[in-house]
Amino acid sequence: MISITPFDADGAIDEPALRGHLRRLAASGIGAYVGGGGSGEGYTLSREDNAKLFRIAVDELKGKVPVRAMGVEPRTAAQMIDFLNLAKDAGMEAAQVYSLDVGHAHTPTNAELDAYFAEVIAAADIPLVLSTHQSVGYRIAPELIVELAQSPKVIGVNCTHPDLGYLATIIDGVAATKDVHVGGPMQALTALAMGAQGYLSSEGNLAPKLCVSVIECYKRGDLRGMMTAFDQVVRLSAGLYGNGGIRVTKAVLNHLGLPGGYPRKPRLPVVDDRLTRALAVVESLEIGRTEGW
Amino acid sequence: MISITPFDADGAIDEPALRGHLRRLAASGIGAYVGGGGSGEGYTLSREDNAKLFRIAVDELKGKVPVRAMGVEPRTAAQMIDFLNLAKDAGMEAAQVYSLDVGHAHTPTNAELDAYFAEVIAAADIPLVLSTHQSVGYRIAPELIVELAQSPKVIGVNCTHPDLGYLATIIDGVAATKDVHVGGPMQALTALAMGAQGYLSSEGNLAPKLCVSVIECYKRGDLRGMMTAFDQVVRLSAGLYGNGGIRVTKAVLNHLGLPGGYPRKPRLPVVDDRLTRALAVVESLEIGRTEGW
Amino acid sequence: MISITPFDADGAIDEPALRGHLRRLAASGIGAYVGGGGSGEGYTLSREDNAKLFRIAVDELKGKVPVRAMGVEPRTAAQMIDFLNLAKDAGMEAAQVYSLDVGHAHTPTNAELDAYFAEVIAAADIPLVLSTHQSVGYRIAPELIVELAQSPKVIGVNCTHPDLGYLATIIDGVAATKDVHVGGPMQALTALAMGAQGYLSSEGNLAPKLCVSVIECYKRGDLRGMMTAFDQVVRLSAGLYGNGGIRVTKAVLNHLGLPGGYPRKPRLPVVDDRLTRALAVVESLEIGRTEGW
Amino acid sequence: MISITPFDADGAIDEPALRGHLRRLAASGIGAYVGGGGSGEGYTLSREDNAKLFRIAVDELKGKVPVRAMGVEPRTAAQMIDFLNLAKDAGMEAAQVYSLDVGHAHTPTNAELDAYFAEVIAAADIPLVLSTHQSVGYRIAPELIVELAQSPKVIGVNCTHPDLGYLATIIDGVAATKDVHVGGPMQALTALAMGAQGYLSSEGNLAPKLCVSVIECYKRGDLRGMMTAFDQVVRLSAGLYGNGGIRVTKAVLNHLGLPGGYPRKPRLPVVDDRLTRALAVVESLEIGRTEGW
Repeated sequence: MISITPFDADGAIDEPALRGHLRRLAASGIGAYVGGGGSGEGYTLSREDNAKLFRIAVDELKGKVPVRAMGVEPRTAAQMIDFLNLAKDAGMEAAQVYSLDVGHAHTPTNAELDAYFAEVIAAADIPLVLSTHQSVGYRIAPELIVELAQSPKVIGVNCTHPDLGYLATIIDGVAATKDVHVGGPMQALTALAMGAQGYLSSEGNLAPKLCVSVIECYKRGDLRGMMTAFDQVVRLSAGLYGNGGIRVTKAVLNHLGLPGGYPRKPRLPVVDDRLTRALAVVESLEIGRTEGW
Repeated sequence: MISITPFDADGAIDEPALRGHLRRLAASGIGAYVGGGGSGEGYTLSREDNAKLFRIAVDELKGKVPVRAMGVEPRTAAQMIDFLNLAKDAGMEAAQVYSLDVGHAHTPTNAELDAYFAEVIAAADIPLVLSTHQSVGYRIAPELIVELAQSPKVIGVNCTHPDLGYLATIIDGVAATKDVHVGGPMQALTALAMGAQGYLSSEGNLAPKLCVSVIECYKRGDLRGMMTAFDQVVRLSAGLYGNGGIRVTKAVLNHLGLPGGYPRKPRLPVVDDRLTRALAVVESLEIGRTEGW
Repeated sequence: MISITPFDADGAIDEPALRGHLRRLAASGIGAYVGGGGSGEGYTLSREDNAKLFRIAVDELKGKVPVRAMGVEPRTAAQMIDFLNLAKDAGMEAAQVYSLDVGHAHTPTNAELDAYFAEVIAAADIPLVLSTHQSVGYRIAPELIVELAQSPKVIGVNCTHPDLGYLATIIDGVAATKDVHVGGPMQALTALAMGAQGYLSSEGNLAPKLCVSVIECYKRGDLRGMMTAFDQVVRLSAGLYGNGGIRVTKAVLNHLGLPGGYPRKPRLPVVDDRLTRALAVVESLEIGRTEGW
Repeated sequence: MISITPFDADGAIDEPALRGHLRRLAASGIGAYVGGGGSGEGYTLSREDNAKLFRIAVDELKGKVPVRAMGVEPRTAAQMIDFLNLAKDAGMEAAQVYSLDVGHAHTPTNAELDAYFAEVIAAADIPLVLSTHQSVGYRIAPELIVELAQSPKVIGVNCTHPDLGYLATIIDGVAATKDVHVGGPMQALTALAMGAQGYLSSEGNLAPKLCVSVIECYKRGDLRGMMTAFDQVVRLSAGLYGNGGIRVTKAVLNHLGLPGGYPRKPRLPVVDDRLTRALAVVESLEIGRTEGW
């Protein structure tokens, strides 16, 4: 899953809340990506923030559950490589390689994308997970991802793309020997059926045991359990994203007495009835029964 | 599923092929929508074509599997009502009500949409299935669909929308007493988990037993069977849509000695290696083993 | 310009209002397309409606200003050809050929588009204006339009596309010998600078003299006059489109005592303060001074 | 206009080329924005790069033509403020304030956008030009921009938005006392007609005199001259953007013996026939006659 980054009211990383949150994840047996651009507010994190975040994540998670650096879409290969080195130096087990966001809604050429990935992979000294994500606004050929994934440095691919033919190409080229995960719960069951290993979720910040149970039920052949858990994940996702995303996720955690912290500017805490609505979803789904609140 | 409409080389409805195709569907136990705008080439069908198509469909399917009229997005309520009356007169069991496509990429106002649905539902004399589909280019409030679905004339909703929160609203408001189906296989498992009754597929033209088996496995708790069948449906879908959609579906059927017929102009038969590629997908998935070729 | 079609309160073509409106256009010296899908509510017009509309338009406009049939995006070549024949039989001077809208957000293949245009042009017995418009949801290669425009049956091209490189290709290939017009006022001055002959506007229904004066000022080298008139056209366009488009255009005409008629279902008359806002724009721009109200 | 940033083959700022380029701009009498995210490759510029760039720009341009800092869409207010301070310390005359790009295709809430702009404007100690640009992927209410522009610190607005009603609101609220410019040549004449002061162009890197002459002709009432010059600007724009944008702009400059330098990674120099095609456009338009090559 993709961990939130708890901040205090002044926008500093809230170390006690961060440690508390990560311990809850570790206790649930769920692997975590930290510093992600969406759920981890990674675009606001300075180099120093990332170093501190990685250090704490390694401290709390390593040896218990997988711990990886996610980061943000870089503008240059140099930025991406610097991030990978930071993750390596902190002892992270792996790091994700986002594709280029060259900015201002421009898109890189194919040759530029090739050169970018080649430079990053050549320079990396940490196991890599390649990302192909529709948020960059352009389509990376799935064949390129498959080819790049043959590098021994690459241990997996995170694929977030609406086209299932795209996903099929990735799975067929990669999933026999390396992990393929889809982003978000929308395609989770579909991806499992197609041979992927799992899905990345932000819902795991609130309901890590629930998110894990989808996969566990799948592995032990419990259809009814898988469908029930997945229904809850999807509805929780809709309830959180429809009411502020990680802003309201943090508010719900705090409301429940769990470590959530504040969002960091430019994101502002939810102030209206969005918390009430999100809590109603959480209660109606009886998430606390799974999570042990 | 959404049936193709077999045509002969001159563009007339190919009655023997149509009957043969529908019999294959009936033998597979799969319900069929006929005359749909996408898979059924419904935009090319005249009033006379539809009357003939409905008559044959009732003849071949009624009493064996559900038989419904799908139609196309209308420009006016009068067009929609005329279509519904045609379906009723032919003895169809139900008909879908598409939302308005006012043309030229314009969108109706909310008041116009309300008035449209109200007029159509009031005039209808056949059980109705409401459609909300992203292809019209605007978003119908799911609350409107739920409200309209309370009419005793409405027996179900077909929902094709990428937002799972949207789907959740439809399911929660409708699925307890009436059927909710999603369009295409993309969200099929997700929708089942959320409480929908099924999915609409074009893949059922080629592999009706396979499409049915996803639901059957689900109902009898066969996780492995469901996932395996669903993987095949998704990959078949990607293989057909990536190579010409119903154009290549018809060509594959013909190649296999099954009744497929020709597409009708403006659609042209596939002429290049798309048939070869689609056949390779069909063979690699061993669809014939399920279907009994 | 693209004429509205005045209807009475019951949705029938309002012949007196239509004749009155067309006479006003003729008196302003502006050429008119009738039956267009956007401004002319062409998607609601039956074959009989079109025949009547064409007959009246020929009666009122022919010999005074150019009179052409616009129509709607067809589903098949046969529909387009039937429309062209109807226009010819009524005595229209020319008719527009829209590109295919195959429906349900599907797009035709290049081969299908080629075959469609070839069939339509071959069958046509009336001077043709080819349309390439972004509203169909796919891009027609401008080189194809240029090639098709070489037919002696083709007298012009209407181009509505945001990419000015696209427009340049059309102009360079066509405008030396045939007319190129852009859709809407957005690109009007740009197109004139690039060598196009003019622009199509819906604003001409309310302010025909104003729309003509942009071109007249341009031709006689009156920069200040052209810019002033164009500013008014653009602001009038924003004021009308932001408040209901042709719905409010008709209401403004009626309010001013000019023949406008009602929109036809599914479009509904404006009922809120949109008329007030649109009238405020019309008054602030002092449109009446140009038009002679 | 928005200046390119010449780099050497190793990606360092090429100071001689930069100075040469800026001198050419100054000699043409065109004001320049430097460090922009699109044409200035601003996303690749470090804090040190920007400091150097600003210092040189002030050195070459100040007192001759307007010299302003453009920058890139920031992730946080702190980043934007730091950029403004850097520009002020270097002696830039003004700086643009981009709206937030919060990353990963997420959009800020209205409250977050308000808070962002309020914080930035309060902290700024340099004249500001507000930007509203569609490239951020969300719509900023034009009324907010008008309201913010009332601050005495704000001297203008750069507006890049396809909706002319949007632009009208900005012009009516701002242009009486402060400058409004549109982004790119597409809306240049339209904006002039509506009361804006000018347009921002990347074409000015190659043809600064030509870009200036559009405005000069407009001011002196030379319609023919304005339209001819504008036609060239638009066709030059299409010829450059269709062949690699600033990558090919730099290559064309170098080919002509003018200082252009290299693009910086991740952008790569054009290597195929795009240079040939762009040169053909430049030659056919006889740009050299205006520019004095």
